[in-house]
Amino acid sequence: MADYQAPLRDMRFVLNEVFDAPALWASLPKVAENVDPETADAILEEAGKISSGVLAPLNREGDEQGSKWNEGEVTAPEGFREAYQTIVEGGWNGLGGNPEFGGMGMPKTLVAQFEEMMQGANMAFGLAPMLTAGACLALDAHGSQELKEKYLPNMYSGVWSGAMDLTEPHAGTDLGIIRTKAQPNDDGSFNVTGTKIFITWGEHDMAENIIHLVLAKLPDAPKGPKGISLLLVPKFLVNDDGSLGERNSFSCGSIEKKMGIKGSATCVMNFDGAKGWLVGEENKGLAAMFTMMNYERLGVGIQGIGAAEASLQSAREYALDRIQSRAPTGAQQPEKAADPILVHPDVRRMLLTMKGYVEGGRAFSTYVAQWLDISKYADASEQDRRKHAEGMVALLTPVAKAFLTDRGLDACIMGQQVFGGHGFIREWGQEQLVRDCRITQIYEGTNGIQALDLMGRKVVGSQGKLYELFAEDVAAFIEENASDVSLRPFLEPLAAALERLSDVTEHVVNQAADNPDAVGAASVDYLDLFGLTALGYMWARIVKAAAPQAEGDSSGFYSGKLKTARFYYDRLLPKTVSLAEGIRSGSESMMALTADEF
Amino acid sequence: MADYQAPLRDMRFVLNEVFDAPALWASLPKVAENVDPETADAILEEAGKISSGVLAPLNREGDEQGSKWNEGEVTAPEGFREAYQTIVEGGWNGLGGNPEFGGMGMPKTLVAQFEEMMQGANMAFGLAPMLTAGACLALDAHGSQELKEKYLPNMYSGVWSGAMDLTEPHAGTDLGIIRTKAQPNDDGSFNVTGTKIFITWGEHDMAENIIHLVLAKLPDAPKGPKGISLLLVPKFLVNDDGSLGERNSFSCGSIEKKMGIKGSATCVMNFDGAKGWLVGEENKGLAAMFTMMNYERLGVGIQGIGAAEASLQSAREYALDRIQSRAPTGAQQPEKAADPILVHPDVRRMLLTMKGYVEGGRAFSTYVAQWLDISKYADASEQDRRKHAEGMVALLTPVAKAFLTDRGLDACIMGQQVFGGHGFIREWGQEQLVRDCRITQIYEGTNGIQALDLMGRKVVGSQGKLYELFAEDVAAFIEENASDVSLRPFLEPLAAALERLSDVTEHVVNQAADNPDAVGAASVDYLDLFGLTALGYMWARIVKAAAPQAEGDSSGFYSGKLKTARFYYDRLLPKTVSLAEGIRSGSESMMALTADEF
Repeated sequence: MADYQAPLRDMRFVLNEVFDAPALWASLPKVAENVDPETADAILEEAGKISSGVLAPLNREGDEQGSKWNEGEVTAPEGFREAYQTIVEGGWNGLGGNPEFGGMGMPKTLVAQFEEMMQGANMAFGLAPMLTAGACLALDAHGSQELKEKYLPNMYSGVWSGAMDLTEPHAGTDLGIIRTKAQPNDDGSFNVTGTKIFITWGEHDMAENIIHLVLAKLPDAPKGPKGISLLLVPKFLVNDDGSLGERNSFSCGSIEKKMGIKGSATCVMNFDGAKGWLVGEENKGLAAMFTMMNYERLGVGIQGIGAAEASLQSAREYALDRIQSRAPTGAQQPEKAADPILVHPDVRRMLLTMKGYVEGGRAFSTYVAQWLDISKYADASEQDRRKHAEGMVALLTPVAKAFLTDRGLDACIMGQQVFGGHGFIREWGQEQLVRDCRITQIYEGTNGIQALDLMGRKVVGSQGKLYELFAEDVAAFIEENASDVSLRPFLEPLAAALERLSDVTEHVVNQAADNPDAVGAASVDYLDLFGLTALGYMWARIVKAAAPQAEGDSSGFYSGKLKTARFYYDRLLPKTVSLAEGIRSGSESMMALTADEF
Repeated sequence: MADYQAPLRDMRFVLNEVFDAPALWASLPKVAENVDPETADAILEEAGKISSGVLAPLNREGDEQGSKWNEGEVTAPEGFREAYQTIVEGGWNGLGGNPEFGGMGMPKTLVAQFEEMMQGANMAFGLAPMLTAGACLALDAHGSQELKEKYLPNMYSGVWSGAMDLTEPHAGTDLGIIRTKAQPNDDGSFNVTGTKIFITWGEHDMAENIIHLVLAKLPDAPKGPKGISLLLVPKFLVNDDGSLGERNSFSCGSIEKKMGIKGSATCVMNFDGAKGWLVGEENKGLAAMFTMMNYERLGVGIQGIGAAEASLQSAREYALDRIQSRAPTGAQQPEKAADPILVHPDVRRMLLTMKGYVEGGRAFSTYVAQWLDISKYADASEQDRRKHAEGMVALLTPVAKAFLTDRGLDACIMGQQVFGGHGFIREWGQEQLVRDCRITQIYEGTNGIQALDLMGRKVVGSQGKLYELFAEDVAAFIEENASDVSLRPFLEPLAAALERLSDVTEHVVNQAADNPDAVGAASVDYLDLFGLTALGYMWARIVKAAAPQAEGDSSGFYSGKLKTARFYYDRLLPKTVSLAEGIRSGSESMMALTADEF
């Protein structure tokens, strides 16, 4: 297996050349306080070292060993504890955190790059900092000042880790029907009782304390999603002086045997009157969770790219090393028994498809991160700018989560395929990437749920208005660059794809008025269509940034971008045509079958 | 996990109603000797019992335990030995074998159904009978009378199993560069020396002897694929009286840790002057292998359907049991906390996509098996009929292998997705099906190689003539049924898909004349386009068979077929449009990149 190398060159290209992130940061006073281009660059460099040097070498062994459960205690795979200590020492858990409580206040555009490296190097490990950052975000946004002071500094430092406890055996997508109870005590605390499943890193031996954010129902809470509250439930109670007190009354009943991310512990958590404190208002727990959802969901999309990047690196190296058969045009290395498999068009097709999705996806996740930064950090005086960004975030987050993980899995499968039989055996690491990446399509809201969120809540829910924000952005780009010679071959097909997407959007919005099944019947294909078009837009922006540099570039970096863009437009963007046709067939053939007919 | 149930109802529908297999069998004298509809039905029934009752219950535990290697000995998972004994007692290894040497002489149309059940119930196990049947086929077609008499009876009975030894560490797709040597002895035997890898069930404790068919090079053999010979190398030498003699000098050096089919042993075999006998002529080993390839490759396609059927059965049951959220049109089971997830359009989309591929794929594999039967068993007086069938087999086999396994994996992934988080953990069995099914896209020639075989050797190699055989068959069906009311909504889109495929075929044949890269640049998308069209044809034939029965059918079987066909035409067949567009972009964007630019 090729050693994972953080793709710093491409990340810098995306940040500095495609999106001019330094200008963005300078335009956001609260960001500008904390970061300048030199700092950002040093952070990337250091993150790359840790990812490639510390996390990646533990990835395979972590998968082989898995986390181990013994009488409620969970032991992380060998080396994970020490690696976690490195993360603590570097303060990486708090990279994007609120400086008021010890976070580093870095913008998501930068944090996203760190996340991709960490997840690409070792997804099972990366989930611990990811969940901690997510818990911090919810706490920072909704917790009382007292809770924040008590918990956030140690969570940002990573001395304590975080966990999110949502799912129950009978309630996954449908959190409205959870049964975990929170009974109020006289001192303002609650006793939490119930069983939660699928709790990532809910128990482990890497941090001194684990802070659980638990969804539960208060007595007499309304039924359904509007009767859910969020509680902070620490593994060890925290004394007033900040020292750790007695162990709280909950424990890890078991951990799951699963397909991938085996290094991580997926815990069943049994709460038995555990002491907890309300985060935010009573019955507003789901809303509090949704605050962090956009960050987490983008983070999961980034996991998909991270895994795919790792797969691409190995597959590319293998395609250059492995010799097998001759090029269709005649021997390329006649002195050897065969040619490197990179000479074969179909091997190139696989690598280029991977590149198209990974590099386009990296640009897209950074594009979405940019809207997250504006929505969070735009000055109070810039209400319109902030509102516009919030709309973009709402619209694009489900696309980033689902499209990037769906294509991430496709890419990992192709990377494995490049290896032939060697891809199926453990030795080369490709099969682990497939198994790990697969979870990203499922957790944090399945990709089907993302598609419903996009098509239903966002697009139809706004009567197409949120969609217009994106369409206008693409249309403006096309118009502004109409005279750019290097972009000319791309703008017409991009405009056609956008028009196709706009037509389908209007079609479904109209259908949905009379047919409640129209949204669900269109949703997944619509999200695919949207994602393909959005990455088409990204590749056009990449061309714009790369074209002026391509001449005289001997590294192949810029010319490679231009040629990959061509491939994307030739082979991947055309998929939008069939998707649009499928969506137009409506819900009838999907809904016609009775249960017996299935 | 739902208990696997052999899909006998659908198999009987395909055999008897869609293809009228009894009429086919009656038209082939050598088949008619051995099988009539009652015998066939009894075989299906018994195969179903063994698959569901004996093999399926071992599937998960086999995956958990895996085969174990110890000092050259391999122990199959618990229960596999006894199950193999059941297969031996029923004579299942010889189901399609030559009656002259103890085979049962059953047609592939019937054997294919048995294969699907066995592979769907337990793929890791099913590989042992599959490889044995394959080895028998090669031996029967090319071995001397002496070799056949000595080995075939015990292989058909299964007392001895078979293994195929092709791949070497440096030589997979490109067998022309193998290094294993066969040195002739004075007694007509050979000494075989070399290392083979990825040898499925190359060593195990289920059979009394293991007969390896090994590709090797004789001294002074020509370079490349034309210098390869096939040798029979038994684990235990066989005395003239048929008793087992001394152990041959080769052994299993290790077994692979792999993504799936863990119950099976994937062996490294070290031959150290092992005694072997030539099968067929010197230097004609590859040709001998190709005899069995069409059977094996169809068998691998069938594995894809088998796994997908198992996944579909579980997913369907789960979608009826699992309650979560409400139907878009309002509560369907207001007395419960939520509705079964089958009410959601997107869950239906996943199940219908699975059905579309599995049931359409089952028809397609039977359609291909029918051509195999004609090509093998047509009377010597029917040269044209046989020749036509041979052409169909040559053309359709790579499609069956690659398209059915690609869609098989898609289906398994969807089945897993229906389960949400529960699909990722071992308990439900869905994740194992994904891991097992993945190998079918890789072995027996990767799907990329299948696509090259289809597009290059078959379509371009015959200047489109082989393609015409298939196109004429579809066109004839369309013409013959022009006045069929129930078929009317399907014939026009089928004709359009066929025209699209024909146009693209002509386009690539023309391109290939000047551009050696044209074939490889088109191949995988072309195979997809071909497969989608072929399954569209199958669904039309299914409609033709089902429509007259649908009225008054209270089981939902026939009406379910009609509605699934509708879904296939609405949602899956349209994918052909984009594929055709992608192919027309040619090889330029694929070949443009230098190695540095990747």
